[in-house]
Amino acid sequence: MDYSVGQQFLSELVGTAMLLLLGGGVVATAILTKSKGLGGGWLLINFGWGLAVFAGVTVSYASGAQLNPAVTVGLLASGGMTDFGLAILLIIAQLIGAMIGALLVWLAFKKHFDEETNAGTILGVFSTGPEIRSYAWNLITEIIGTFVLVFVVIGFGHAGDPATKTPAGLAALGALPVALLVVGIGASLGGPTGYAINPARDLGPRIMHAVLPIPNKGGSDWGYAWVPIVGPLLGGLIAGLLSRVLLP
Amino acid sequence: MDYSVGQQFLSELVGTAMLLLLGGGVVATAILTKSKGLGGGWLLINFGWGLAVFAGVTVSYASGAQLNPAVTVGLLASGGMTDFGLAILLIIAQLIGAMIGALLVWLAFKKHFDEETNAGTILGVFSTGPEIRSYAWNLITEIIGTFVLVFVVIGFGHAGDPATKTPAGLAALGALPVALLVVGIGASLGGPTGYAINPARDLGPRIMHAVLPIPNKGGSDWGYAWVPIVGPLLGGLIAGLLSRVLLP
Amino acid sequence: MDYSVGQQFLSELVGTAMLLLLGGGVVATAILTKSKGLGGGWLLINFGWGLAVFAGVTVSYASGAQLNPAVTVGLLASGGMTDFGLAILLIIAQLIGAMIGALLVWLAFKKHFDEETNAGTILGVFSTGPEIRSYAWNLITEIIGTFVLVFVVIGFGHAGDPATKTPAGLAALGALPVALLVVGIGASLGGPTGYAINPARDLGPRIMHAVLPIPNKGGSDWGYAWVPIVGPLLGGLIAGLLSRVLLP
Amino acid sequence: MDYSVGQQFLSELVGTAMLLLLGGGVVATAILTKSKGLGGGWLLINFGWGLAVFAGVTVSYASGAQLNPAVTVGLLASGGMTDFGLAILLIIAQLIGAMIGALLVWLAFKKHFDEETNAGTILGVFSTGPEIRSYAWNLITEIIGTFVLVFVVIGFGHAGDPATKTPAGLAALGALPVALLVVGIGASLGGPTGYAINPARDLGPRIMHAVLPIPNKGGSDWGYAWVPIVGPLLGGLIAGLLSRVLLP
Repeated sequence: MDYSVGQQFLSELVGTAMLLLLGGGVVATAILTKSKGLGGGWLLINFGWGLAVFAGVTVSYASGAQLNPAVTVGLLASGGMTDFGLAILLIIAQLIGAMIGALLVWLAFKKHFDEETNAGTILGVFSTGPEIRSYAWNLITEIIGTFVLVFVVIGFGHAGDPATKTPAGLAALGALPVALLVVGIGASLGGPTGYAINPARDLGPRIMHAVLPIPNKGGSDWGYAWVPIVGPLLGGLIAGLLSRVLLP
Repeated sequence: MDYSVGQQFLSELVGTAMLLLLGGGVVATAILTKSKGLGGGWLLINFGWGLAVFAGVTVSYASGAQLNPAVTVGLLASGGMTDFGLAILLIIAQLIGAMIGALLVWLAFKKHFDEETNAGTILGVFSTGPEIRSYAWNLITEIIGTFVLVFVVIGFGHAGDPATKTPAGLAALGALPVALLVVGIGASLGGPTGYAINPARDLGPRIMHAVLPIPNKGGSDWGYAWVPIVGPLLGGLIAGLLSRVLLP
Repeated sequence: MDYSVGQQFLSELVGTAMLLLLGGGVVATAILTKSKGLGGGWLLINFGWGLAVFAGVTVSYASGAQLNPAVTVGLLASGGMTDFGLAILLIIAQLIGAMIGALLVWLAFKKHFDEETNAGTILGVFSTGPEIRSYAWNLITEIIGTFVLVFVVIGFGHAGDPATKTPAGLAALGALPVALLVVGIGASLGGPTGYAINPARDLGPRIMHAVLPIPNKGGSDWGYAWVPIVGPLLGGLIAGLLSRVLLP
Repeated sequence: MDYSVGQQFLSELVGTAMLLLLGGGVVATAILTKSKGLGGGWLLINFGWGLAVFAGVTVSYASGAQLNPAVTVGLLASGGMTDFGLAILLIIAQLIGAMIGALLVWLAFKKHFDEETNAGTILGVFSTGPEIRSYAWNLITEIIGTFVLVFVVIGFGHAGDPATKTPAGLAALGALPVALLVVGIGASLGGPTGYAINPARDLGPRIMHAVLPIPNKGGSDWGYAWVPIVGPLLGGLIAGLLSRVLLP
């Protein structure tokens, strides 16, 4: 791959915007008033986010499609990525992309936002929040969920030829394995906090929620905002470090 | 590939008929009175349309399985297709195929149509319609949804060997990636307008709705018919043009 | 492949038994009294049948995994199979396998059958039946559904290298495409008649329903039994013949 | 593969911990009080367990990802594995891993366990139990379910080149086929007993249920505990033996 730094920055931005457009979109479809998918349920949301990853990874080939600061941190910790400066750039692109994705969700569902009267529902399309508020335990949930994400993603890289560690499975399957993984994490570990497992996925849309002119919106719950940043970063870090021993 | 123009025309017609047969069929299964799948929900409809794409693409290999004027326009805009005359022919085949598919849905569910008394339900099996009528915002929703479709489809072409741009992933997976993509677009962006994202998918069945002798059917909502034509064409055009920069 | 005729017979029997064990099982899970999956819905049933095909095809590699007289007839009509005597043998194996599969469903759900008091529910685990009884239109529904099955299966064979017609997609994906296809047919065309699309799938279990000592079971609805035999055979035949022109 | 015995032990432990973390997690998501996925239904649980297998197999490449004593026993019986001492070690690792996975589920859902007042719901997150208690028939259900699991897994190994028996499908698809298989077994055969189909999956979490300080928990139902141990072991044994004849 000989994509320029600028191309990689743009690619990571486009991929994360696609991720948040479809990811935020499925929540909007499932919970906003008068949506055709209203009441579609948890499995709909899980598949929507998984296929959001699928689409985002597909269009972000030029940068390797990390789309998530926790993945970037995990790859640094595992030794799978060594360019610290590039990592910072990609994280910035991820955050900007997430904001753009959230903006596009708002445009696609504009009339439904206008008619929505529940502030909690509106915030729920943008950011995650816990069912039982307990910062310590919410943090643990996010750490575990993100650990699974990053640890298994690193595992994909070992699924191919054991001699070369070339991810043959990934080459053939493209974005499908990580999409399925995210469906699984949502189905299994999303119950308590709504599985941010990605700081950009939560912070970018939360900023847009604070900025956009949405009727009936309430506060952006900034008191909780650090949990889906710190938890995923710690989970990714632990996954990256443990992978050095546990994924030989 | 050395298929004749006639074979390509027929192939595009067959593929789009298959798409509409299974796509219209899943809506019929989910909403027509006395159907075994009545009340099956949004995820059922999303998977049904995705697998309709899967089947349609599979049988339309001779023409490259565009099955959608917005995809054809997007490929022209991206430079991935250059034969303008062939493009026109394929679009005509898509429209005829969509009409045939809608006819087959009517035959397969004949008795259920006969016993259905809700005109809105009957029209819903054929064509899309908005939950909150607002032509401008409905158009934006369709533009965004179709942009995602065409942009990611173009992205599939870059998933393989970066040197040759051969879509290795597509060669191995066949019709699966685009099927999953359409599941995702439906789950995430279908809430407001029912995701036409394809002019043939909406116009062809709408013509059949106007023509077929269905008891209790109402008007065919021609006032809205331009939205799922113009929106997808614009979305495909934008995706094709932006892909020249954003999918290097 | 140099499997003996006896191995092919046994393979087809094992594959169809697996198909009916998991296929009948998902219906039992979704509708029998006190089942953990009671009320699981149409999408659960669609995925269950699709994955039943997945498992059945996987273990039936020695015979090519037709598992369905309509597929066998379609392959004869398309020219993809020429040994008429072997075809007869495979169809016999399919019917016996389907009966064994239905028997295993009864064993796995024995206590739930014992406590079930609704005769229609009991029959529904074994055989298909229409929601609106109309032999002519029910037949058309089964013809269309089976046409889709056989036509797309023949299409899979063209998905690979156009020069050799080797199904490269199938070689890599194994049983997955046909499994997804059956999920799609069920989701889209199963509403009126419950998508037999396979004479063995319906007749074998119907015979077991007549034979097994199940409390509260009613009649086996032999008046309808010819529809899911004749419909699928005609659909397969049409698909095989049309494939000679439409799948060049 | 030249992984050391210690690496294989650790790999099997990590893989089974991942399996139980996501598998127990989806049950917790679907049934624990105040979970976002509460009432998500049987298909959610089926996909959650299937994707738990997907993640567990992915990270357990060093040991071949058996993750289940019934699979280990089946491979011994089929001749696919001959090192009896290693088999014992892997089974111990599977049991320890399952306990760790259950512990992680408890941590991720800590506040939801604390607020749950139904003892049956709490036990249901850890272990399986029958809907209609009948040890003999419950045993038969588990035997049949596990037979399907092990028999089809052995079948995957024959899906590739018939000359070398190399599982070409598995090489390309990685952990996906077995994940789909487990979705299918759950959908189709999970109704009566909740598809343990794996002694480690049931016993490990049951031990953790007995040990962990969970408010409102009741007994661990040790009277039933032998069924999901003996049934899966017998099912795996039968599958391994029959595969010698039926999977030529």
